[in-house]
Amino acid sequence: MLLESLREQVLKANQEIARRGLAPHTFGNASGIHRSGSQPLVVIKPSGVDYNALTTADLVVTDINGKILEGTLKPSSDLDTHTLLYRAFPQIGGIVHTHSEFATSWAQACKPIPCLGTTHADYFHGSVPLTEPLTAEEVASGYVRNTGEVIVRRFKAENLDPIAVPGVLVAGHAPFAWGKNAHEAVEHADVLEYIARLAFRSVLLNPSSADLPVHVRDHHYMRKHGPKATYGQKR
Amino acid sequence: MLLESLREQVLKANQEIARRGLAPHTFGNASGIHRSGSQPLVVIKPSGVDYNALTTADLVVTDINGKILEGTLKPSSDLDTHTLLYRAFPQIGGIVHTHSEFATSWAQACKPIPCLGTTHADYFHGSVPLTEPLTAEEVASGYVRNTGEVIVRRFKAENLDPIAVPGVLVAGHAPFAWGKNAHEAVEHADVLEYIARLAFRSVLLNPSSADLPVHVRDHHYMRKHGPKATYGQKR
Amino acid sequence: MLLESLREQVLKANQEIARRGLAPHTFGNASGIHRSGSQPLVVIKPSGVDYNALTTADLVVTDINGKILEGTLKPSSDLDTHTLLYRAFPQIGGIVHTHSEFATSWAQACKPIPCLGTTHADYFHGSVPLTEPLTAEEVASGYVRNTGEVIVRRFKAENLDPIAVPGVLVAGHAPFAWGKNAHEAVEHADVLEYIARLAFRSVLLNPSSADLPVHVRDHHYMRKHGPKATYGQKR
Amino acid sequence: MLLESLREQVLKANQEIARRGLAPHTFGNASGIHRSGSQPLVVIKPSGVDYNALTTADLVVTDINGKILEGTLKPSSDLDTHTLLYRAFPQIGGIVHTHSEFATSWAQACKPIPCLGTTHADYFHGSVPLTEPLTAEEVASGYVRNTGEVIVRRFKAENLDPIAVPGVLVAGHAPFAWGKNAHEAVEHADVLEYIARLAFRSVLLNPSSADLPVHVRDHHYMRKHGPKATYGQKR
Repeated sequence: MLLESLREQVLKANQEIARRGLAPHTFGNASGIHRSGSQPLVVIKPSGVDYNALTTADLVVTDINGKILEGTLKPSSDLDTHTLLYRAFPQIGGIVHTHSEFATSWAQACKPIPCLGTTHADYFHGSVPLTEPLTAEEVASGYVRNTGEVIVRRFKAENLDPIAVPGVLVAGHAPFAWGKNAHEAVEHADVLEYIARLAFRSVLLNPSSADLPVHVRDHHYMRKHGPKATYGQKR
Repeated sequence: MLLESLREQVLKANQEIARRGLAPHTFGNASGIHRSGSQPLVVIKPSGVDYNALTTADLVVTDINGKILEGTLKPSSDLDTHTLLYRAFPQIGGIVHTHSEFATSWAQACKPIPCLGTTHADYFHGSVPLTEPLTAEEVASGYVRNTGEVIVRRFKAENLDPIAVPGVLVAGHAPFAWGKNAHEAVEHADVLEYIARLAFRSVLLNPSSADLPVHVRDHHYMRKHGPKATYGQKR
Repeated sequence: MLLESLREQVLKANQEIARRGLAPHTFGNASGIHRSGSQPLVVIKPSGVDYNALTTADLVVTDINGKILEGTLKPSSDLDTHTLLYRAFPQIGGIVHTHSEFATSWAQACKPIPCLGTTHADYFHGSVPLTEPLTAEEVASGYVRNTGEVIVRRFKAENLDPIAVPGVLVAGHAPFAWGKNAHEAVEHADVLEYIARLAFRSVLLNPSSADLPVHVRDHHYMRKHGPKATYGQKR
Repeated sequence: MLLESLREQVLKANQEIARRGLAPHTFGNASGIHRSGSQPLVVIKPSGVDYNALTTADLVVTDINGKILEGTLKPSSDLDTHTLLYRAFPQIGGIVHTHSEFATSWAQACKPIPCLGTTHADYFHGSVPLTEPLTAEEVASGYVRNTGEVIVRRFKAENLDPIAVPGVLVAGHAPFAWGKNAHEAVEHADVLEYIARLAFRSVLLNPSSADLPVHVRDHHYMRKHGPKATYGQKR
């Protein structure tokens, strides 16, 4: 029952990737995790299947180490990145990988996205970080899992909170975003693309565009996410 | 009755924000004011409600100081900016705040939009001005109201007429536009985005793009807005 | 009868301006001329009327000097530019004025569009020229007519053939395009926007992008327009 | 029968060019070749016919030297480029020529598209190459055929495999892409435009954007195309 509801949510998130234009062709995938049962269950998109043809029955169920438990199709080729992130970031419940155009362009330029405005600060508490490139050995010894490793290494090195910074750029590759569930993950992937577009144009207009002052950045982040959040209606 | 008609106009303006793509997600809001009664009444979008789901009954009515008079939902978190502008600029009857992409990129780049062409001059008599950033104290002591204060301070410092210059960029944030009513405000927000796109590309093509000569700028502004306006059909 | 057919064609061209997205709001207009009767008749869009609401009955008919012969609405405020061009360029039968985004950005940057590729050369034999800005006196003594004058002056100064170069950028304003009739004029306005987009990106990628070699440029222009044209089906 | 199936595939590929927005107006064409019969048969779009009006009966059938065998319409003016590529690259079965906007902008800037990311590496094993410009003599002595010659010369000079590098930019002109059939060719033309957009933005963000490390590039290319490909479902 819970698994069925997770399947629905992951299906919806994968469809949203396509509907919002975040991943041309089949360059993207969403997953979700159910953590509270006897063993955590991951639900993920199968590899290379068109978003429009996808059904809940096509989704693949694995354990948190990527061992397939249910499903006849091969899981997304990015599965090992997803499961590594679920193991390293116990706070998160959904992951979305896209090749959205502007975020991917920043990843290819090997530049983190600076926090230039309040739109950015409402969702990401600071820059959108950039990983190191994978070494030849990391590529050879488990490319997909090591993609997760370089993400986690970056967050540890900077002492970043994956809830406050719900996404990353993998150098020379593309973005990953996450959230407390798959629905929030795709929302963050969409906002990430939006702020990538804004920042692209701001730095072209003014190459010395400066980070938002810390007092504004923190105010905006806290008004949406802090204990005294004032945005939206009471739930 | 008059209030009902204002509600309809403010609803329409909020829907236009979405329809014209000026504010992804719910990053935008429109308000209108009825000034001629015993006390001025402000009608504004509620916070965080989707544009498509919005009805006139959802709109919030306040006095000119932002005291809620009607409505069960929380007003837009930007309410205090709107009411401050209504108090400071008695000529205006509607305000629209968006996060439209190119205008926001200019705001993040901390650059006013120069008046490079006649399209700009038809609507804005001179550059689209840029505010100062808010100080830490201003953020702490009433961020939203002080967003209005930095706008007004900028108009006073340059002796700008809010009718001739119907919009502004808040540094590191996004644009506000206004007009004699909510309908005209959303039209100005849309034109502002359009001229932000044109100017973005012009300055990339030619970083030393120069302001339109004053004689052309004034001619264009006056033919639409002056006492001898020649554009459009007689009303 | 002939006038009715011209009205239909001019209506269609005005609708095409909107359909192809060449003129946001009502920033654009199309006209056509019938030259073979006892006196030339010009049909032009009325001022400030929405493209979707336009009917053939709304169009305004004038003589070649802009004297209104038929119609109850005010003609486009750009009428005097159109009629001046019809008088100066007897080869042309239709004119389209737009504020299409990339062509307007080049006009605002005060740069002609260089002929960087074969797509450009198929339609424009050389750069898309740029006028001089209007002087204060020209603005004061007939702004709209003098907009036509600076276009004609530019073509004379460079000895350009308006059939081989079917469009121009008015400095700090926007493009005008033309053709043997209103249908071809709107096609040229659309191609002009397309090549403006291409050239914008090429010069950003490579600021020293060079004009297409003359032997390629001439080959492409002649294969579509020369006496031995090989493109398309025989008519 | 086989020819009929090839006609269907070539029709579909031409329609896909339009549907994906790869060739405004009629600036593009697709062809396919049937190689296994007694003589190779090429099916190609007729010249200057609108994609939406196109039927299988309109397509032109030629031999591998471009001699017309079936069809009443003139073949695409680019026929000689297609047939030369079919003769030079026996591995390929379909060719698509577009004027897609970003790939054409790179061609006009006379710059190959560097391999900056894994999206690129999944489809193109290295840069998208750029031809030399055609000399005046080459233009005069068979412009269209010589367009094919400069492509082939570029692949020979760099010892490129047309299967691993399924496309090219013709300097000052536009891209050609190909594949094992017309369907794959249009897919490659679409991906080429996508990576042209990404790379455009990456190099603007960081003019010294570096090629993806060879170990990542090769890993990505091989996981989709190598003998141990792991992407997608087993066929």
